[in-house]
Order: sequence, then structure tokens, then C-alpha cells
Amino acid sequence: MTFSPVSDTVLNQFTQIVGEKFVLIASHEDFARHASDETEDLKFFPEVVLKPANAEEIAEIVKLCHQNFIPVTPRGAGTGLSGGALPVHKGVVISTERLNKILEIDERNLQATVEPGVINEAFQMAVQEKGLFYPPDPASKGSCFLGGNLSESSGGPKAVKYGVTKDYVLNIQVVLPTGELIWTGANVLKNATGYNLTQLMIGSEGTLGIITKIVFRLIPFPTKNLLLRVPFYSAEEACAAVSQIFRIGLVPSGLEFMEREAIEWASRYLNIETDLPEGIEAHLLIELDGNDLDVLYKEAETLYELLQNYNIGEILLADNEAQKNELWKLRRNASHAVKHNSVYKEEDTVVPRAELPKLLHGVKEIGRKYGFKSVCYGHAGDGNLHVNIVKADMSDDDWNYKLTDGIKELFELCVKLGGTISGEHGIGLVQKPYIGIALGETQLNLMRGIKNVFDPHGIMNPGKIF
Amino acid sequence: MTFSPVSDTVLNQFTQIVGEKFVLIASHEDFARHASDETEDLKFFPEVVLKPANAEEIAEIVKLCHQNFIPVTPRGAGTGLSGGALPVHKGVVISTERLNKILEIDERNLQATVEPGVINEAFQMAVQEKGLFYPPDPASKGSCFLGGNLSESSGGPKAVKYGVTKDYVLNIQVVLPTGELIWTGANVLKNATGYNLTQLMIGSEGTLGIITKIVFRLIPFPTKNLLLRVPFYSAEEACAAVSQIFRIGLVPSGLEFMEREAIEWASRYLNIETDLPEGIEAHLLIELDGNDLDVLYKEAETLYELLQNYNIGEILLADNEAQKNELWKLRRNASHAVKHNSVYKEEDTVVPRAELPKLLHGVKEIGRKYGFKSVCYGHAGDGNLHVNIVKADMSDDDWNYKLTDGIKELFELCVKLGGTISGEHGIGLVQKPYIGIALGETQLNLMRGIKNVFDPHGIMNPGKIF
Repeated sequence: MTFSPVSDTVLNQFTQIVGEKFVLIASHEDFARHASDETEDLKFFPEVVLKPANAEEIAEIVKLCHQNFIPVTPRGAGTGLSGGALPVHKGVVISTERLNKILEIDERNLQATVEPGVINEAFQMAVQEKGLFYPPDPASKGSCFLGGNLSESSGGPKAVKYGVTKDYVLNIQVVLPTGELIWTGANVLKNATGYNLTQLMIGSEGTLGIITKIVFRLIPFPTKNLLLRVPFYSAEEACAAVSQIFRIGLVPSGLEFMEREAIEWASRYLNIETDLPEGIEAHLLIELDGNDLDVLYKEAETLYELLQNYNIGEILLADNEAQKNELWKLRRNASHAVKHNSVYKEEDTVVPRAELPKLLHGVKEIGRKYGFKSVCYGHAGDGNLHVNIVKADMSDDDWNYKLTDGIKELFELCVKLGGTISGEHGIGLVQKPYIGIALGETQLNLMRGIKNVFDPHGIMNPGKIF
Repeated sequence: MTFSPVSDTVLNQFTQIVGEKFVLIASHEDFARHASDETEDLKFFPEVVLKPANAEEIAEIVKLCHQNFIPVTPRGAGTGLSGGALPVHKGVVISTERLNKILEIDERNLQATVEPGVINEAFQMAVQEKGLFYPPDPASKGSCFLGGNLSESSGGPKAVKYGVTKDYVLNIQVVLPTGELIWTGANVLKNATGYNLTQLMIGSEGTLGIITKIVFRLIPFPTKNLLLRVPFYSAEEACAAVSQIFRIGLVPSGLEFMEREAIEWASRYLNIETDLPEGIEAHLLIELDGNDLDVLYKEAETLYELLQNYNIGEILLADNEAQKNELWKLRRNASHAVKHNSVYKEEDTVVPRAELPKLLHGVKEIGRKYGFKSVCYGHAGDGNLHVNIVKADMSDDDWNYKLTDGIKELFELCVKLGGTISGEHGIGLVQKPYIGIALGETQLNLMRGIKNVFDPHGIMNPGKIF
């Protein structure tokens, strides 16, 4: 694809569409932050950042870009971890930050219609006030946008029981790369009417269009929960316990794994004192939820019984909100703590959950082979392990070149175990070199063909996924 | 598209691939039944029916058909209700009936790998023996194939709590219309690796390829349930009660609606005596499930309280398996009972659940306007109402021509209410004339474009959906 730069004429047209105040060029104080997201330390500057007010303005901008072969990079909150929001081919960044309204919470139908720039947690709280529940809650829920959650097919700790973002989306309004505005489906729980464009859009990382409205389904809010912290003397054994918990019929609403170092780093980062006896290699954080506390205590008993089969320390049953919040805060900040500590790369590995011990074992073995240190944590219940490779005292050369082979080997292991190379962060820019490990040329050609149907000029978030 | 007939040369090649025994031509006693499915009284004869043994044979057949521009119609059990398995352009029917093995039930990962010709209920029972649950259970579960369930994005009564077929599929092996064999995803609960080809394949009604293996996720089997039958003096009020049940925080595992006439016809068809006092217009069948009977009884109490706000008859709490089975049998046979009674057309309408009363009201009003009688039942909890239009004493002319306008009006109402024209039966052949009501030209062109990427010769199940 050959792209054109943003000419003065086009810039004027942009200004007419969105208004001068919402056209940002390099001299603007708010411009520079649009060159990066939460992915490592990458920076790519666009030519211009636009902040449209609504779907219609976005459609007009995109139509212009389509006609003029100008690259468009959609941007939510910039919390992505695979570089999806980075304008690698320059052009225009379209920020959805002004499309930030919850348009309707429909209590009769347990549905909600929102704009893509609504912050995940703000939405969760708004529906919770009405006794409703929107479960998907990525670690960045306090800042990430729902539109970005759709684009990356985000998960979070609740996914183990409640599913990921894709399981709550009924219908999406999208500006296609040609500037046309469509709805992908209907506001219904079941839909067998043509191909599933809704699910095709989810996880397409902004390459097939810009999401401008979302209709979610909601469920009743579960009123009670218990949280258990279980210390294991062997990290691999902690992983092995995970699949057993489901095997005895329990479905926790959270089942998180943290390696000792992740706990230590997060504790230090947050200045929280964590009880971590010598020899403990990992924690499992297990949440049970429902509407009946007696039932939850019964489930907890079943869990205690099972856990007696493992070499564990003392289980902490968090029985007040403060304690629960602290435990979740530690888990949610693991990524920040690692980032604070060192340059790092985060690999979003995922395997069938019973293969977790093999995955963890393999991560460490590959680390020894290639000389990298890793800090691991993640959504163990989903088989989704975030492997943080920290630079520490690796040479720049090893970090930039030799490491690539190590990551390749890690992803090959995932695929060999029946898994894949991203569970919830997407491929974006940084995992693009590895996609051939997960998908063959036939699948990739189908995807390229689909991309071409939606985006014949290839302007929408170019340079991502494949 | 111009297609070619099956030449003697190609027929010989087919015979070499699958063996003489599995090539059926018109003179074969088992040939004729492949001309129809459960959709109304339609008949379309193929040139040849092939019964391959495995994915590799299917790939070889399809490659030949691709090269020779021969139409291919994939066929499961032939229980479809939209004509998806009808070979309207002649050519080859590929039956998946010999791909009927459950390949693995992986108790460690709560996953199962099956071939597409496994019968839904056989699969359910096989996993239940291991304490596991595969919830999607269309009314035809005793005979329908899992491959067909995927192709039509089938639902069933459990969908209201547990979701539809698409929510249990992790990965699909597919023979593409070019004869290439791919897997669409990975065997994981979360996957953010490229476009979601798995979900694109589900509900594509055999137009994008032939499913040859499926990896399902499973959940622990809920051990207890209660079933309530609630008679309403007003059918519209029964529909109105549905959304209130969710609003008070309950999530039933079944929430079915049956009009009086559907109950009467099914009772007569099955020779079951049903207590149906004068004035009762409809039943709701409400199932609650879980692992703790005390909790279920508490939920039932909450339900009773809510239902006191409606004009209802005496609630029947089915407390033994025989009674429960009889109630479910009546519901599952409603469609057969209607078919037994008259020529009919079944419309698979779906709306946001709180709009059900408006939909039912509209159905009857449109019926009066166009002179048709309808018998309604369906998955009320999902807003999915099966509207059976019975021919009764309508003239053939009215049935074949005037009725089309009535159905159009009915579907326009669905869309106006935020719904669509098929919830779980698919578009196939019979709803094709109406798809423009639900989807605009832009969406349809995207779908046609996707179809063309997968199937450049247009041979795979031609004449369906659009």
C-alpha cells in the first residue's frame, strides 16, 4: 500500500468537520501522548490527531481518508499492550475520547447502549447501581475504554466464570474503512441472520472499522463473594491445582496465579506488606461468587478439602472488603510493578488450562536457555499466563535480537500445547512477527481477504496483525 | 454463477475417493431422502449423494468440485428448518453421517473433540456420564447433528442461562470451498490472535466450508433442577412476566412460552392429558437449576411472589423426573404437532425480551389482516418466539402469494422492535427473500465479499442466505 500524507487541503476539511479545537498538530501540548500506548517503550507520531464528537463526524473523516489514501489509527484510552493504537504509518489518529456517554441502561431488557469512549469501570459502576453486572474487567479497568476492550477482545479476572468481552456484545455500530456507517447485528440474545459481523469486528484490533456505539447484554449482579489466597510451595503445583478445581465441579468467578516475584514486586510498588513465608513460590487467588453466602462457604469447604492434596501454606480467607480490595489491587498492579522495575516485554500466552504446569515449566527452561528472567502471573483459570520478560542486565543486543528466538520458542510451546500466542491483548504491532506460529498461510490469507473486503484501500490501522 | 453437472469422469473420481458403497445416485433406495429436510414440504434433488468417511475424503471431493464448478451442499441430519441442506442448484450432497465419532472427552481441560455427525443428545449423554455439561439442546436434539447445530447457530431451551452453540465452540476443523483443510482457532477459552474465523464459520449455514471436527468447551453438570408450569389467563401478560423474572435477579435455566393451541395440539399429538382450564391462554415453563436444592426452592419462592402480580391459574411444581419429562416432551413436540396438523411455515422471530408482548400482539394483528392463523411458542427468555403460520383453510393462492406480504410485515415488526428475522434457525433458502428487512445492502455486500474470499467459485451451498 502506498499512502498519502495529510495535505493542507485535507487538514482544512478535517477542521471543518470536527472544529479547530479538536484538531491537534505536533505543536499542541496534548499531541505527543498519542504517539505511544502502554506497550513497552514504543513511539510513533501521527501527522494529526482528531477528536470527533460522534459517529457522523468519524464517518466523514474516514471517508476523506479513504478517498485520499491516508492511514487512520483508531485510539481509545491508549492502554493497549500490543501496540494496536500506534500510528506506525503516520496519518491520522482518531481519538474516541469525546464519545464517552452511556446512552441507555435498559433495565427492562438487561441491555445497555454506550459510546466507545466510556471507561470500563465507570460503566460497571453505572450498571451496578441498578443491580446489573457487566463482568469483563481488564486490569486497566479504571482507565481503559470499552471500544478498546472490544477491539482487543479483552478478558480480565472474571472471564473464568463469565466469559470475555465478546460474550457480552449484542450489536455494534461501526464506521467502515470506506466511511459507511452500519450496525453489525441486532439487539438480541440470539441471532442466526447472516454471517456474524459482530464477532468478526470484536478482536479485529481496529483494522476493520471504528466502533462508534455498542449494545451490551447485562446480567443480574451477584451480591456475595468470598476471596481466598492460597500460598503454594511449588509454582508448578499451583498451576496443576487449577484444572482440578473445575474438575470437582466448582466454577470460581476468579482464579488468578501470581509468582513469588510478581507478589514481591507488586507489594513493593504499592507499599503493601504481604505475608510471604520462605519457600512459597506462588499464590492462587480464588474468588467464589453468588447470591447465597451459605452456598459459598460450602463451596469454600470443598475447595479446602481439595487443596489439602497439595503442599500449601496457610490459606487466607478475605472476609472484608478492605482485605479483598488489597488482594485484588496487588494482582491488578503486577503489570505496573514490572514496568516500574525494568524495561520488559509482556507475552500473553494461553493454553488449555490443564497444560499450565507444562507452560510454566517451559517458560523457565526457555528463559535459562536464552538468558532471560521472567515474572509470571495471570488468569490461570482460563489457561492465560502473562509472561513478563524483564530486561534486567541483558545486553541491548541480546534484548533486541537473541530474545526474539526465545519468544518464538515460547509461542511454539503454546501452540504445541493446544494454545495460541494471545489470549486477550491482541497481536497489534509487537506480536505481528510471531503470528505465523499460530496461524498458517491459508488462515492468514482468509484474514487478508476479509480485510480487503472491508478496507479496499488498506487505510484502517495499517501495519497491524498481519 | 454458472455451474457444471457431475460428469461420468468426475463421478468415477468420487467413487475412487469414497468407495462405491458410499456414492448414491438416483436409483439408490437411500437417495430420495436427501432431497428434503424438515423445512415445510420442499424437495430439491441433487445429482449425487456422497458419504465420505473423514475430513481428508471431504477435502478431496470439494477440491474436485471447486475445479469443476460443481455445487456442493453439506448435509447433517437434515433436521434444519430453513432449507439449508437442500441442494437447490443440484450437484453433490456431502453427508457427514459417517463422521460420527466422539474423538475425545478431555476431563482435565473440560473440553471435547467430536466429528460433525455426532447426534446432539448422544454427545450430551456421553459428557454427562463424566459429570460434564454441554448445554445447547435444540428441540431436535434426539436426531440433529452437532455440525448442523454449528452451521445454524442453534439454540434451544437452555440458551437463556447457558448461551447458544456458538458459546461452546473453541475451535473448528473446516474443509474450505477450495478443498483446503484448516483449523479456525485454538483449543483455548480466550483467543485474541487474528480475526475470529471460528465465530465467522458458526451460523454461516454451510456456505463457507464443511465442518469436519469441533472442539467444544464443557462445564460442570448442574445436579439439581426444579420445573414450574405457570398458566396465564392472558398470553400477552405471560410474555410481559418474562422480562420481570430477570429483573428481580433470577436467571432461569429454561423459560419457555406456549400458547393454548400449541399446548392442545402437542397434547393431542402425544396423547398426553394436559390440565388446561377454560380461559387459560398460555403457559410459561420455568426451569431453575443449580447444585443446591434449598437455594432452588428459595428462588422458586421469589418467583411465586412475583407471579402473584399476574392473573394466573394454579402453578404446577414438577417434582419428579416423569412429570418434568412429560412437560418438556410437550414443549419439544410442539413443532411436530403443528406439522402433523397442517401445512405450515415456521418463522423464527426474535426481539429484546421485554418487547415480546408487542411482538405477540403484532403477530395476531398481522394474522387478522392477512387472514392467517398462527400457533406460537418458543424460548421466551431469549425473546425468541417461533411463529407457526398454519395453512388451515387458506387458499393456495393466498398461501403462496398474499402470505408473503404478511410475513414481510411480521419481520419488519421484529426489526422495528430491535430484533431480527432469525434467532436460531438460520436464513437458508426460505427466509432469503426477507433478509433485506434485517440487513442493509452495505452489510450484505460485506457478507458477499467474505463469501467470495472463502469460495471464489461460489460452489459451497449456493443459493442460500443472500
